Amino acid sequence: MTTSKGERTRSTILDAAVALACVQGFEALSIGSLADRVGMSKSGLFGHFGSREELQIAAIEAAAERFAVLVYRPALEAPRGLARLNALIDNWLTWVERCGWDGGCPLEGAIHEFDDRPGPVKAAVVRHFTRLERELARTIRLCVDTGEFDRDLDVDLFVFRLMGVVMAFHYRRRLMGGTRAEAVTRGAFALLIKESAPGRLQRDQ
Amino acid sequence: MTTSKGERTRSTILDAAVALACVQGFEALSIGSLADRVGMSKSGLFGHFGSREELQIAAIEAAAERFAVLVYRPALEAPRGLARLNALIDNWLTWVERCGWDGGCPLEGAIHEFDDRPGPVKAAVVRHFTRLERELARTIRLCVDTGEFDRDLDVDLFVFRLMGVVMAFHYRRRLMGGTRAEAVTRGAFALLIKESAPGRLQRDQ
Repeated sequence: MTTSKGERTRSTILDAAVALACVQGFEALSIGSLADRVGMSKSGLFGHFGSREELQIAAIEAAAERFAVLVYRPALEAPRGLARLNALIDNWLTWVERCGWDGGCPLEGAIHEFDDRPGPVKAAVVRHFTRLERELARTIRLCVDTGEFDRDLDVDLFVFRLMGVVMAFHYRRRLMGGTRAEAVTRGAFALLIKESAPGRLQRDQ
Repeated sequence: MTTSKGERTRSTILDAAVALACVQGFEALSIGSLADRVGMSKSGLFGHFGSREELQIAAIEAAAERFAVLVYRPALEAPRGLARLNALIDNWLTWVERCGWDGGCPLEGAIHEFDDRPGPVKAAVVRHFTRLERELARTIRLCVDTGEFDRDLDVDLFVFRLMGVVMAFHYRRRLMGGTRAEAVTRGAFALLIKESAPGRLQRDQ
């Protein structure tokens, strides 16, 4: 498969755009600021993205695509059930280090930038998280199918708690600089999985 | 107690500063942007805050102080133990509605703005969250003292999981617009508390 020069240039621009967003946020992106960074003229950049908003959406989609490649896709190689859920969680926890951009998770940062700003950029962020929740729910449901999780498990509640553990992990490691962040995160996952074992929910009623 | 005109003006400025930060972030704060908003001259504002950074720190401290007044302080009226922990959680979940500013939690937004920017503004954010974690740990330890939680409970792990639930709540309600956000959050808290009951940890070994 060959990619055209135009596609390669577009991909280089988007890579630089996400790198900037990882540290300063997607709101810091503008055709002007990015043209300087990639050494192109503003008009050259306008040839690829007609507006600042279009550029922001394309950058969010580029980050979401890399997330899919690094997190969902390799997890599918693990057998369905708990092994696959564990692989997905491992990939998710390490994706910030592997993504090639410095700074925090650009997609989690985007939650706080756009939650109060309805519009097409927020919609791109919501699409990413809707897909993430759907992939998580599917992977968790397979753990119910294999009998590793209780058949009365509230899958959406599990997804919600999983989101919370990953958010708390990023907060502890990046803001609080805790050396224990990784260990406490693994502990939280282990508890979540243990609490979902078959028979466990019934015993609690 | 009387407050001077200077203190009242300072407080009015900080209120407007946090209101702006709730929607656009603390990085959007500048002496210039704020002078327009409160109808003062730039030089008048410089009389209160010597620099943009000083203004950002004072705004974060003003938000943290309101958080303390609305979340920690009223929880102390509840009897020590689970009643107080429940009061604290209720106050925390509703504080964004009660704080008087529109938009998301300014302090949670600040996590993602400053985690990659070491310096005195980040230090102010870390001070708030260090205090929050300390108040949570103290309240949870009292639940162990009253016998409502297991004496082998990992208090820091509980604090971590609690942080995650609140972060996931804000994400679900503000970004995803889920009508189920409040119910799923209450469900997550209920599980967390149930899983910490005496004897529960031992049974799982």
